[in-house]
Amino acid sequence: MDIDELKQNIVTASHILHQQGIAAAFGHVSARIPGTNTFIFPPRMSPALVRKDNLLILDVDGNQLSGDGRPNTEFWIHARIYQARPDVQSVCHVHPPSCVVLGSLGETIRPLHASGAVFKNDVQVFDPITLIRTRELGDDVAKTLGPHGAMLLRGHGVNVADKDVRRVCIMTLWMEEAANYQLRAMSAGKPRFFSPEELQVIYPQVSGEEVSNRTWVYFSSRLDS
Amino acid sequence: MDIDELKQNIVTASHILHQQGIAAAFGHVSARIPGTNTFIFPPRMSPALVRKDNLLILDVDGNQLSGDGRPNTEFWIHARIYQARPDVQSVCHVHPPSCVVLGSLGETIRPLHASGAVFKNDVQVFDPITLIRTRELGDDVAKTLGPHGAMLLRGHGVNVADKDVRRVCIMTLWMEEAANYQLRAMSAGKPRFFSPEELQVIYPQVSGEEVSNRTWVYFSSRLDS
Amino acid sequence: MDIDELKQNIVTASHILHQQGIAAAFGHVSARIPGTNTFIFPPRMSPALVRKDNLLILDVDGNQLSGDGRPNTEFWIHARIYQARPDVQSVCHVHPPSCVVLGSLGETIRPLHASGAVFKNDVQVFDPITLIRTRELGDDVAKTLGPHGAMLLRGHGVNVADKDVRRVCIMTLWMEEAANYQLRAMSAGKPRFFSPEELQVIYPQVSGEEVSNRTWVYFSSRLDS
Amino acid sequence: MDIDELKQNIVTASHILHQQGIAAAFGHVSARIPGTNTFIFPPRMSPALVRKDNLLILDVDGNQLSGDGRPNTEFWIHARIYQARPDVQSVCHVHPPSCVVLGSLGETIRPLHASGAVFKNDVQVFDPITLIRTRELGDDVAKTLGPHGAMLLRGHGVNVADKDVRRVCIMTLWMEEAANYQLRAMSAGKPRFFSPEELQVIYPQVSGEEVSNRTWVYFSSRLDS
Repeated sequence: MDIDELKQNIVTASHILHQQGIAAAFGHVSARIPGTNTFIFPPRMSPALVRKDNLLILDVDGNQLSGDGRPNTEFWIHARIYQARPDVQSVCHVHPPSCVVLGSLGETIRPLHASGAVFKNDVQVFDPITLIRTRELGDDVAKTLGPHGAMLLRGHGVNVADKDVRRVCIMTLWMEEAANYQLRAMSAGKPRFFSPEELQVIYPQVSGEEVSNRTWVYFSSRLDS
Repeated sequence: MDIDELKQNIVTASHILHQQGIAAAFGHVSARIPGTNTFIFPPRMSPALVRKDNLLILDVDGNQLSGDGRPNTEFWIHARIYQARPDVQSVCHVHPPSCVVLGSLGETIRPLHASGAVFKNDVQVFDPITLIRTRELGDDVAKTLGPHGAMLLRGHGVNVADKDVRRVCIMTLWMEEAANYQLRAMSAGKPRFFSPEELQVIYPQVSGEEVSNRTWVYFSSRLDS
Repeated sequence: MDIDELKQNIVTASHILHQQGIAAAFGHVSARIPGTNTFIFPPRMSPALVRKDNLLILDVDGNQLSGDGRPNTEFWIHARIYQARPDVQSVCHVHPPSCVVLGSLGETIRPLHASGAVFKNDVQVFDPITLIRTRELGDDVAKTLGPHGAMLLRGHGVNVADKDVRRVCIMTLWMEEAANYQLRAMSAGKPRFFSPEELQVIYPQVSGEEVSNRTWVYFSSRLDS
Repeated sequence: MDIDELKQNIVTASHILHQQGIAAAFGHVSARIPGTNTFIFPPRMSPALVRKDNLLILDVDGNQLSGDGRPNTEFWIHARIYQARPDVQSVCHVHPPSCVVLGSLGETIRPLHASGAVFKNDVQVFDPITLIRTRELGDDVAKTLGPHGAMLLRGHGVNVADKDVRRVCIMTLWMEEAANYQLRAMSAGKPRFFSPEELQVIYPQVSGEEVSNRTWVYFSSRLDS
C-alpha cells in the first residue's frame, strides 16, 4: 500500500466516522507510514473536512515533518502508541457519545452481543480527566492501552489501535454500538453479559478480517449514496 | 409468482430493512422456490447491496445450486427452517438493535401495543451464544422456532419465518418496533403487558393480511422518495 | 374556508405528521364540512400517500357519501366524536411512539414543560384494548374524550379533536413531544410535574391561537425543504 | 464587525441551532450593536426562517427601533441581560429537548465529560413557571444568570450569553449535548460528575476560543451540505 492509498483510507475512515455520528467537530484517524516511526495525521479540523491534500506527517517524538496545517493538539496519543506498539499501523481518537456516557458511569465495554465480543473484556479505562497534550500523558495512555486494541478515556472518549486504517474505523464503529447497546440494556434492566466461556465461542466467529472488511465495504458504499 | 418476482421482493425487502435501520452490513432475507426444497438467498454482503442479479440458489442441505457469490455463513438458519416447516415460504435473519438489547436482558417480546400483538406470547429464545454455521445448529434453531413465526437469538438477533417475503419483511419491522417500545417502557416504569384476554381481542384485528400489505405498500413507497 | 382548502389542510397535516415521525403506514386526519354532520376522511393508506383527490366524505352514522376508496376501519372514532361534539371541526387518530409507550405504563400526559401545559391534566385514557371498529366503541371513545381536546387509547394511540385541522395537527405534535419528555424524565429521575397553580400561569401563555399558527407555519415550511 | 456581518452571524447561528435540533418553531438569537444599548433581534418566526432582511432592532427598554415584523414575545430576556451585563454581546433563548427534560428533574448541568466542563458548576436555574414577557421578569432572569454564561429555566428552556454570536451558538450546542449525556448517564446508572479538582484541570483545556471557533467552522460547513 503506497502513501496515496493510505491517505485515501484516512479520508474515507474520517468521513465514515463523521457520517455515522461518531465524530462531529473533533477526532482524528492516523496511519503509520509502513516500516517507519512516522505517521500521517489530520490537521486541526473536523474529520468531515479532512482531504488527502491537507494531511500532515509527524513522527513519534511529536515533530511535524510535512504539511502546512497545525496538527490536532492530542497528537501525542498517536505518537506514543506508535512508539510503544510496533505492531500498530493505525490509531483513532474520537469522542463517541455512548462511549463517553458509559465511561462516565465508571463502566467499560462488557460484551452482550455478537459484534461486541470483538472487544472481549479487554477495554481498559484511562481515569485522569485531561486532554492528552504532552508526551508524558501520551506515554501514560499507551501504557493503559497495553497490548489491546481499544481503550476508554473516562469523561473524554476512546482510542482504537489496530493493524490498518480500515479495521480501526470498523472497530470504532463497533465500540460505539456496543456502548450504546450496553447503556440501553442497563437503563431497562439487568443485562446478561457474555461469560468467558461464551466469549471463547463467539470471539473467533466475529473477529476475523473478512467480517470487518465486509463492514468497511458497506460503510464506504454509504458515503456516495 | 415467478422467480423474477420473488427475487424482486427479496431485493425490496432487503432495501426496506436497511432503510429502516433493521440491518446495516449484515442480515439476509430468503424465499423458497415454490414447491421445492430450494431457496433464493443473498450473497455475503449488506442487504443494501443486494440486487436481483447477485442472488444465489441453495437447497435445504446447504448445497449451492446457482450463483457466483458465496452465501452468507448463516445460511443454515434458512435451510433448516425450510426443511422443518413446509408451510414457510420466506425467512429473514437480522440483528435489529432493540431486539438484540431486549434479548440481552433475558427477555422476549411481550406485547403492550396493538401491532405488537401479532407476536402474542409466542416469541421463543434461542439461548446459546454462537453464530449458526452448522447444519446441527440450524436444526436447533428450527426446533426453537417451532410452529411460530418469530424468535430471538439472545445476544445475536432474530429469525422471522412466514408465508411470503412481504409478510416476513413487515413482521420483522413490527418486531423491532415492539422491542423498542418494550425497552422504553421498561426504562421508564412498569409496563402493563397485554393479558391473554386482551390478546384474544386485539390479535385478530391486527394480524390480517390486509394490515401487513398496507404496511408493505407504505414502506415500498419510501424507497423511491 | 371552502372544501378545497379544507382538503388541502388535511393533506398538509397528514404529510407533516408523517414527516415528523408521528405516523407511518397508519393514522388519519379528518375535517367536518362546516355546518354539517359529514366529514372529509382519508382512504385506507398511509398519511404520506393522502392527496386531495383520494379523500372521501362520510357522515356521523358511518355512511360513505363520496369517494372511490375504502375508509380507514376506525372511521367510527371520527364519526362519533363529530356527533357528540358540535364544536369539533377536525379529528386526528394516530399512534405516536412515545404516547403509545406512556399509555402502556398506565400513565397519561402530565405537563412538565411549557408547550405540554396546553394539555393541562385533562388527557383521559380509554382503557379497553381493541381497535375502534364499531359505532358503539366510537361512542365510548367520544364519551371518554368528554369536553376535552386530546385523549390516549392505552396500548394503541391518541385522538385529538379541536377547532380546525391546523390546530389538531399541532396539538398532536405537542402531545407526542410532551409524552417523549415525560418518558425521558421518568427514565432518568423523578419529574417535577407542573402544579395546578403553575398550570394556571402558563396555560394562557401557550394555548393561544397565535402560538399554534406559528408552529403550523414552521412545520408547513419543512415539507418543501 | 459591521452590522451586516452581525446579522449574517445571527442568521447562521439560527440555522445551525435549527439544523441541530435545538430549535424548531421557537427560539431566538440576538446580538448587541457594539457600544450601544440596542440589539438586533429576530421577528416572531422559527429560527429556520430568519433572514438578514427580516431582523429587527430593539433597545434594552424594549422599544422597537427598526424592522417591520413584531418581535418574539420574550424579547425581555435579551433586553434585560444586555442592560445588566455590559460585557455580553450576544444572547440566545431556546428550548433544547434534553435541557428541558433535565430541568424538569430539578437538576442542572453537572459536567461529566470534557466539553461539558465549559459550564463548570455555574448553571443556575430560574424556577418560576412562566414565559418572560415583562421587564420585571427579564430583570429576574438576568439576576439569576448573574455573572455566568448559561442558565436553565425550569420547564421551559435555556438562556446563553457570551462575548459574540458564534460563541453563544456553540455554547448552546454544548449545553444540550451535556444535558443529553447527563440524562443518559442518570438513566443507566450513577454518573461520576467531575470533581472541582478535575474541573480545574480540564476547564482551561476546553474553554478557549480556538475550540469554539473550530466548532463554529464545522457546524457552518454543514449548512451547505
